[in-house]
Amino acid sequence: MAKKILIIGSGAAGMTAASSARKFDKGHDITVITEDEDIAYSPCAVPWVLEGKNSWDGIVMHKPDYYSKEKNIDVIVRTKVDSVDADAKTATAGGKTYSYDSLVIATGGRVFVPPIKGKDLKGVYTVRTVRDGRNIEACMKETDDVVIAGAGVIGLEMAVALKNTGKNVTVIEMMNQVIPRIADSDIAAEVQKHLEKMGINIVLNAPVEEVLGEKSVEGVKADGKTYSCGMVIFATGVRANLDIPNQLNLDIGQLGAVVVSPTLQPYRRGRLVNDIYLAGDLIQCRSAAVPGPTMSQLGSSAVRQGLIAGRNAAGDRSMLGPTASPWISVIDELQVAGTGMSKGLASWYGISVVEGKAEGLTRARYSPGGKRLIVKIIAEKSSHKIIGAQIFSGEDANGRINWLTSAILSGTTAEEFLFMTENAYCPPTSMVTDVVLSAAEDLVRNLSG
Amino acid sequence: MAKKILIIGSGAAGMTAASSARKFDKGHDITVITEDEDIAYSPCAVPWVLEGKNSWDGIVMHKPDYYSKEKNIDVIVRTKVDSVDADAKTATAGGKTYSYDSLVIATGGRVFVPPIKGKDLKGVYTVRTVRDGRNIEACMKETDDVVIAGAGVIGLEMAVALKNTGKNVTVIEMMNQVIPRIADSDIAAEVQKHLEKMGINIVLNAPVEEVLGEKSVEGVKADGKTYSCGMVIFATGVRANLDIPNQLNLDIGQLGAVVVSPTLQPYRRGRLVNDIYLAGDLIQCRSAAVPGPTMSQLGSSAVRQGLIAGRNAAGDRSMLGPTASPWISVIDELQVAGTGMSKGLASWYGISVVEGKAEGLTRARYSPGGKRLIVKIIAEKSSHKIIGAQIFSGEDANGRINWLTSAILSGTTAEEFLFMTENAYCPPTSMVTDVVLSAAEDLVRNLSG
Repeated sequence: MAKKILIIGSGAAGMTAASSARKFDKGHDITVITEDEDIAYSPCAVPWVLEGKNSWDGIVMHKPDYYSKEKNIDVIVRTKVDSVDADAKTATAGGKTYSYDSLVIATGGRVFVPPIKGKDLKGVYTVRTVRDGRNIEACMKETDDVVIAGAGVIGLEMAVALKNTGKNVTVIEMMNQVIPRIADSDIAAEVQKHLEKMGINIVLNAPVEEVLGEKSVEGVKADGKTYSCGMVIFATGVRANLDIPNQLNLDIGQLGAVVVSPTLQPYRRGRLVNDIYLAGDLIQCRSAAVPGPTMSQLGSSAVRQGLIAGRNAAGDRSMLGPTASPWISVIDELQVAGTGMSKGLASWYGISVVEGKAEGLTRARYSPGGKRLIVKIIAEKSSHKIIGAQIFSGEDANGRINWLTSAILSGTTAEEFLFMTENAYCPPTSMVTDVVLSAAEDLVRNLSG
Repeated sequence: MAKKILIIGSGAAGMTAASSARKFDKGHDITVITEDEDIAYSPCAVPWVLEGKNSWDGIVMHKPDYYSKEKNIDVIVRTKVDSVDADAKTATAGGKTYSYDSLVIATGGRVFVPPIKGKDLKGVYTVRTVRDGRNIEACMKETDDVVIAGAGVIGLEMAVALKNTGKNVTVIEMMNQVIPRIADSDIAAEVQKHLEKMGINIVLNAPVEEVLGEKSVEGVKADGKTYSCGMVIFATGVRANLDIPNQLNLDIGQLGAVVVSPTLQPYRRGRLVNDIYLAGDLIQCRSAAVPGPTMSQLGSSAVRQGLIAGRNAAGDRSMLGPTASPWISVIDELQVAGTGMSKGLASWYGISVVEGKAEGLTRARYSPGGKRLIVKIIAEKSSHKIIGAQIFSGEDANGRINWLTSAILSGTTAEEFLFMTENAYCPPTSMVTDVVLSAAEDLVRNLSG
């Protein structure tokens, strides 16, 4: 029987849910409602467009027309859903009421901007949408001095992009390292060294206290000092957008996001809510690294969740697997990647860890073009299970971090990993013993020592 | 108690065994005897040296001096072991007798050259040692026309190297595809297309019948036709060197190599032989992909086995894990990789398989520099277990093939792989859903359909 499927949100989670529902059933009636003007674009690519390596048109995969013509999916843009009635199974948006059989909430997250003085001045931006990117691009014509608040991967990718277009860039971070939380301090220090060599100014242990200026940005105050600039970009983390979940009284977890079942359905006072599914930056999911909840605010995670939410909204009962949240960031010539727990995150979960670490090259020592490669693997001390890994490299980090992710997801111990692992070898693509294996050897040694 | 450890052979298996034994125990008396003049070099790098990308000195990691000074390991070069007496625990070499407590046999393999007329003419070579490489280099000054017999990865890497130095190169293969046995015909066809575009002449279904010439090579006869050339390189596969195993009456398996225990000890009439260990190209080991024996004549496998043989010779009882034999080859701008079973090998084992395949890019569609990426994954039909994979790519195949290898080694089904897999994503390093995952999706679909 044909269902009416309504999807709120047109990011990676929402559009994937729509396509996935359509793939599951050709007969369903599928509608996407979104506040955005652009849909199906890659927000991760904004820094590269600003640097001139991609174009705005290039990073928008499809227009609404494509979905209506090719997939028979209605996309209603620039329209905010004002309310959802879960009993009547309707949503109200732009003065109209839409009924549904299944609802997918994929309204994502919002960049958290600290509630400080001057945060609404002209010249203050976040990086989330193509519109944000175009606004930054326009402002780049007006100023050469930029402050980026937040040294997470988005902040650093933006810093590199702006530096490479000739700007003077200062990154101000309140924690004591770059890429806090998800990278350990030793890996972070390598990244910081590279950024400083590029001429990017990094200020740590300094929360931004105030944005200075009359009408538009003139500077930033942090840790008592003043940094003058004509643009401030807040890359200070993403919080779940809870507007609709709160209106529906859905249960919110300790990480500040919606608690969902493995089938991506929410709860209300501990009871499963039927016919509603969630995907993307607004949910908590189960960590593969430790027993407990985690969040996975990544494009790849949004797609993975959107696939399941869409199928289930269309009538399936697929389950989301545990989550290690592998991430990778290209920072100038560097590739930095991680998966599962960092040591910092592990201590938040209260667990003890042991690490193994190795440094080598991405190619045989004598093979030209090889890049420095550092791999660290983190195991839980009592079980010896691999629960995290990080890579600092000049190339080929992606496959390696997925490889280590697969060890976390399958609950492998360090000893099993070493016993059960082989690596392919050719002088121009790896050392004869891959650095991942050398790190695992070090880990096993440290666990037994 | 200090042991006398004698190691025969100085390839990757032998030298790793020596270093591994030393690492395990500082007090042991360790001697390596080898026929070779160069030790601790990378035979895999010979094509790149010939192409001018590496030097002979560059690919030799260490001289015998290094081992005596740094590791207290004696290396006796240019010396053939004539016989071993397993009861007396002695070996005779160069007129001297060496006693041992533990013996490691790591005498590797020999290139199989078909017993045809002309195979000993001047200008006929194999590719195994630095000496072979230097001989080929000298001959390159005398001729512009080269025939390579055998279109396996070594043959093709040599073909590319010689083509790139300006030679006219013809590759003659008796099977009906390039990279036979380990690559499937669709992947092989992509490689062949590239080689032909480079101007390399590929002749299939044509065993080399005769090498023509009076004193030195003038041509080759294959499939009734004559190919004139001044050099012939046989890259026709490696057979286990069974000289010492046969002299010791060790049990030889159906693959023509020495049967060993998980601790890498041989058998004589089904009984374990103590104090002897083997590693490298001359042993059979247990396949991770199917219940049964396999061979793993790869540099990375030799190192993995050498580590265990060396530790065990020194007094440990480590076990070799099951083997998927991941391999990768860089053929001009291509990276071709595989692991576990190809469809051809699977049919040799008599099993039915289902494949999943996907094509995409190594980067997001809009990200500049992305290369074509084809991934295929092979599952056993009844168990749904992943038993093989192949990758055709322009970059980043190494980590991806190790990732898939880890799925084979841990006995993962296609459905588990899809459920338990996440991939890292950044526009310049992968698509938002990695092509590996798309291939797994296709595989699950095909298994259920």
